[in-house]
Amino acid sequence: MRNMLLTLAFDGTAYHGWQVQANALTVQQTLQEALERVLGSRPDVTGCSRTDAGVHARMFCCGLRTESRISGSRLVHALNACLPDDIAVYGCADVPDDFHARYDCVSKEYIYTIRNSSVRDPFDYKFSYRYKHKIDERLLQNEASAFLGTHDFKSFCAAGSAVKDTVRTVRSFTVKREEDHVLFTVEADGFLYNMVRIMVGTLIGIQQGKLGQESVAGIINAKDRSKAGVTVPAKGLSLNRVCYKGILP
Amino acid sequence: MRNMLLTLAFDGTAYHGWQVQANALTVQQTLQEALERVLGSRPDVTGCSRTDAGVHARMFCCGLRTESRISGSRLVHALNACLPDDIAVYGCADVPDDFHARYDCVSKEYIYTIRNSSVRDPFDYKFSYRYKHKIDERLLQNEASAFLGTHDFKSFCAAGSAVKDTVRTVRSFTVKREEDHVLFTVEADGFLYNMVRIMVGTLIGIQQGKLGQESVAGIINAKDRSKAGVTVPAKGLSLNRVCYKGILP
Repeated sequence: MRNMLLTLAFDGTAYHGWQVQANALTVQQTLQEALERVLGSRPDVTGCSRTDAGVHARMFCCGLRTESRISGSRLVHALNACLPDDIAVYGCADVPDDFHARYDCVSKEYIYTIRNSSVRDPFDYKFSYRYKHKIDERLLQNEASAFLGTHDFKSFCAAGSAVKDTVRTVRSFTVKREEDHVLFTVEADGFLYNMVRIMVGTLIGIQQGKLGQESVAGIINAKDRSKAGVTVPAKGLSLNRVCYKGILP
Repeated sequence: MRNMLLTLAFDGTAYHGWQVQANALTVQQTLQEALERVLGSRPDVTGCSRTDAGVHARMFCCGLRTESRISGSRLVHALNACLPDDIAVYGCADVPDDFHARYDCVSKEYIYTIRNSSVRDPFDYKFSYRYKHKIDERLLQNEASAFLGTHDFKSFCAAGSAVKDTVRTVRSFTVKREEDHVLFTVEADGFLYNMVRIMVGTLIGIQQGKLGQESVAGIINAKDRSKAGVTVPAKGLSLNRVCYKGILP
């Protein structure tokens, strides 16, 4: 049995996230159907993470076990011929037998994009959240520095999540303006359910004065979801990079 | 009666071009319906050009005559609230009574985007034409210089067009690579039916050697559509800028 790692990208607008679900179209299911057409049987694939409905990925990785002897480049070509326009496979490589796409991932980077304008952009509305009040990216960058390091991020985990260990290490968090867009780029060893979307909603809530006198540091310390800000919409979020030690930089 | 100039942008994927048609959804019809909701009656609007089905506009202008006293900024806001996500109105200004959005336009700039890669980009497939063979942008830029100036562009006008005067002045034509994308940017005082798409198809045909020994200069001189290259797909084309003397730069 070969163990392979696929890298792909997708516009998540039409999908209910990565993970296979009953009665809802997902990226995993769409990829498995394409694999079935190419390989003749439907292999299990293991994603590097679940992603929420409507979230995008500029880079997503998944593991695949197959007995097929097809070359990586032929598999990429054949899959792209079967996949819809909103999913593309970029690479396929053989990996060690014990490699696991989820557990061996050492860090991920997400980018949340806000279009900070009173008018929408018809070319971009699927990939950004439009917010009309002027964002002070310097204030937010300053607040965001409190996210850096290893913390219990329970305040930034969707209520109802079954995860027990809510400690994560945030390696970098930048808030940068590019004309009408404000980009929030977060790298961490792992992410809780809705973590980036709650972080961004909290930063905006702090600027708006909607979270009282609370700072990011205070909200982390509270370990209470109700102290943090709203969960901003999924469509602004994109998984940008997935890193594996020794395999992908 | 006020005479106003609207500037807008649209993702043309879902539309059969600008101009109202029987049995097909167009941008003009969608805008007129929004204007009817805002102003109470359906005004005539005059576009700066027709655009083909599937062509996009980063900037499009149209004239509007109305008796309404609504302010420009309120009209912009109200229209955007009524329009679908793939059309946005950016501005609205009163213009002299004799101003005409089509006849007073002194130049337009189109950008044709090719994704020069064997793999699609799920975020971009609606806005670029994917072409997998390596494009030599320097060779094409060199050939394209023959388009500059005033010529009879009959070879670059779709067969069946009713236009009699096929002389146009091309002010600039650049071919530029940005990583996997090659952008063809053309500014002219006016464009014939499918002109940019045939120009781009011809440049690629010349690189491929599919047009025999013909050069752009030779194909212009032939004044014969059959000597030029194919018409590349609409989805790669976007109207980028519309200029009016004394009104818009």
